This record gives sequence, C-alpha cells and structure tokens, in this order.
Amino acid sequence: MNRSIKIAIKNWNLTSRNEKEEEVIAEEPLSIRVQGKPYAVVMRTPGDEIAHVAGFSLGEGIVDSPEDLNDIAFCDGEDTNVVAVTLKAPRQEQIADIMDRREFVSQTSCGLCGKEIVKDLFQTIRPISDGVRIDIQQAYHCLETLSDYQPLRNKTRAAHAAALYASDGEQLTVAEDVGRHNALDKAVGRLFLDCTLKQASLLVLSSRISYELVQKAARARVPVILAVSRPTSLAVQLAAELNMTLACRAKKGPGLYIFCGEERLV
Amino acid sequence: MNRSIKIAIKNWNLTSRNEKEEEVIAEEPLSIRVQGKPYAVVMRTPGDEIAHVAGFSLGEGIVDSPEDLNDIAFCDGEDTNVVAVTLKAPRQEQIADIMDRREFVSQTSCGLCGKEIVKDLFQTIRPISDGVRIDIQQAYHCLETLSDYQPLRNKTRAAHAAALYASDGEQLTVAEDVGRHNALDKAVGRLFLDCTLKQASLLVLSSRISYELVQKAARARVPVILAVSRPTSLAVQLAAELNMTLACRAKKGPGLYIFCGEERLV
Repeated sequence: MNRSIKIAIKNWNLTSRNEKEEEVIAEEPLSIRVQGKPYAVVMRTPGDEIAHVAGFSLGEGIVDSPEDLNDIAFCDGEDTNVVAVTLKAPRQEQIADIMDRREFVSQTSCGLCGKEIVKDLFQTIRPISDGVRIDIQQAYHCLETLSDYQPLRNKTRAAHAAALYASDGEQLTVAEDVGRHNALDKAVGRLFLDCTLKQASLLVLSSRISYELVQKAARARVPVILAVSRPTSLAVQLAAELNMTLACRAKKGPGLYIFCGEERLV
Repeated sequence: MNRSIKIAIKNWNLTSRNEKEEEVIAEEPLSIRVQGKPYAVVMRTPGDEIAHVAGFSLGEGIVDSPEDLNDIAFCDGEDTNVVAVTLKAPRQEQIADIMDRREFVSQTSCGLCGKEIVKDLFQTIRPISDGVRIDIQQAYHCLETLSDYQPLRNKTRAAHAAALYASDGEQLTVAEDVGRHNALDKAVGRLFLDCTLKQASLLVLSSRISYELVQKAARARVPVILAVSRPTSLAVQLAAELNMTLACRAKKGPGLYIFCGEERLV
C-alpha cells in the first residue's frame, strides 16, 4: 500500500527542461458494500480502509454506534479496494428503513423543489447539546500547527487533513487523504472503532467547510469545527441550526472568524 | 440568484472580539434529471445552471454533441435548483444502454476487484489524437493570471475556477464555483452549448488534478490541462493513457512540472 508514488517528470524553469523525480499522491477507487449490496465507490488515497469505511458509515447514518456493527472487512484479503459492512440484526431492520427512504427520496425527487431538497438535507440530524468549552488560544494553536501533521501534503501538495482534539487541546488523531471527506471519515472512523469518539470536541480541517463536512461532524457529535479556509452559506446555516461552532482563520493577521456558536470558544 | 451572501461574524484577533461583516460563498443543491428520472444531486454555487448541466451531461457520457439534446430546462421557472435534460430519439436509445450498463456495473461490482474497477473507469473514453501545440510561455502566463479572473474566490476564499483557452492563448471562458468539478462543468457547458468547444485546447484549473477532472477534460476533448496544484497518481495514469498533456506549477520559483504529453508545450 503506497500513499504516494515517485514518478519521472519534466521540470521547465522558463528557459530549459530537466528530468526530475517528484512524488504524486496515490488515488484509487474504494468500493463500499453494505449488507451485500454496493453502496458507494469513493476515490481515495489507499490506507486505513477499515477506519475509513467506519467513519463513512457513521456519516451516512448506516451505523450509530460500534454495537451496530457485525463486521467491517475486506471482501478479499488480497484486494484492499473493496470493503464490506455487515450489521447486527436490530440495525439491519433500522437500516432497511434508511435504505428504502434513500431510494424513495431519489426516485421521487421529481416533485421536490430546491427548498424541499434543502429541508430534506437538514432533517436527518438532531442538534448537538453539550457543555463543551475550549480555550480559544488553544483552539487557534491547533489550527496553526495542523501543517506539522501533514507529511503527505508536504510531499505531494495534493492532500487534505482532518484532526480531532479533546476539549483540553490533546490531539486524538489526524488523517490525510486526497479527499477532504475521506480524511474526515478516516479520523472519525478510528476513534469510532476505538470507542473514544466521545472525547472528540474539536475538529480541525485543512480545507474550506462545505455542507457535507458539517453534516459528517454533526453525525460524529463533534461540536466545534475550525478550518484553514472559509465555510459555505449552507455550512453556516446547518451548523447554526444544529447548535455547532464554526470558525476559520482570519483573512489578515492572526485570529479567527467565528461564524456561529462562539460561546464554546472562551 | 446570489453567488455569495453577506453575514455578520465575530472577528477574534488574539485579544478581543469585534462584530464584522464577511461574504460566504453560496452553496445549494442542484437536482439533475435525465429523461424524467433523477440522475444526480450536486452541491454547487447557484448560477449558470443550464451550462452546468450541459457540461455535466457531456462529462457523464449522456450526450456527445449538442445535437443529442432535445432540451435542458428548469422543471419549474421559479426554482433554479431542478434541471431536466431531455434527449433526441436516437440518443435516447444510446443512453438506454449507458443507463443499463451504469446500473449493471453498480449492481454487480461485488465481483469486481480493485483492478477491475480501475479498468472499468479507464475503458469509457477514447484517447485524444490531435496536432495541438501551445507556446509554453503563453500557457504559463494563462496559469499565472488565473487569479485575475476569480472575483468570487477573492471575496469568499472558497471558490475554485476553471478557464478554457484556444491554442493561441485566447481566453474562451472562465467559471467559478464552490466545487472544482462544477466550475469545469460550467466552463465546458457554455462552449458546448455555443458549439465552440472544439476551439478549446487548454484547460487551466485553480485546484489539484484528480482522476475525475482528467476524465471530464477528456470527454470535452481538451488535450492540455494546467493546474495550480498537483495531479494524483490516477490522474497522471489516465492522462498518459489518453494521450493528454498534464502540468502544474513548479514547487519553487517560476516554472512548470510536466507529467505527460510534453510535446504539446513548445
């Protein structure tokens, strides 16, 4: 399993061309199967597949807790690009509803106007209620030091990172991947499988914050998100509705822009 | 239709908090329907929906030329978040095959190992054969001046851009969106609908280059891709196989890293 690959390239420096070796990030498809059925194919950087699929399954609502899982395993020991999720019997019944609903929504979205689609997106997650308070200087330090934990990015210039911290600033895990969603799934999935996800209070992202990243953090019950770049309108709207905290690096000089939930940053 | 939204935020500058107004990029779901059936929902920045869906349809293989289209239109004039594609009769027959195959592949991917998935990904597009030659200084100039055409990014810090150029360096179009895939779909779709896509020889991207972006450029028959950040392993592999040119900004100092197809950059 290689997370990056060395290749021969031409380096043109405005006047001449030389041969050079450079590393590019590995990208491969991962096929995710749930209860024997194909569920999704995601393009990702190889590695950490079991954690990746665990985090993905939590984000999608396929599982709520590790007890829902019967197993997450490679379909074939030789091939790490196909992972199968099987569920315990009670969850199988619940997931049948989710799967049916998923199919129903996609089959009937004809009648859905844009507003209804957004409403539907928002209805699946309950708001976070917690007493988390994080020292703002500490949180800012976590954001500013994220690049220290991005060796794959430093080598390939094409990797995103997601790091999870306890409320006292202790780093619990950090994951890198060619996709921001995958990096978050891997980080969340590791703690989910270790049954330590409850300790995670702060998520730090190397990217901008889209709607889907807020959704995944909300499903993992991580109340505070800090990112290097800015959130989208829908990300702010969803985070505010779910009672989460959203902040990013300020445009000029050191500091943070806080979009909602500022009471958690003290 | 707003592409960005002004919101009140808190600005923390290490010592104090002030109220401030900042722009965030608009993100909304776009539901794409093909021949009356839901095909995909993409999260995107509003605007340019018809071009977006035209470019998306070309990328997906739903259409090959503007003549394949009966119409691309909003389902409801009031709601720009649902767009319907209808096809001419001959294309409907061809698309039936593509749709069936799509369903077949996803239903049977159980037996597919990782290598087979990659093989399947690679089989859908024929290699590009052309005599395009672009002055490398000119191409580099297009890459270096891309930020001049990114007003949405400069305002929101969360938008990607895709620009298309003729082989003499004339800019044909440039599009911005919260998603890199959408920006490319919009740029390609505009020229596709204008029947001027054949003039496009160079694609300049503000992002890194993933497998899917190479695939979309190949479907648009644009042979040269330059990007601000690096390609992935699979992007290089696909571009080389399809006889395309792939380059990005060099790590240090002015210049380009050329990953394949250097003969087009003279």
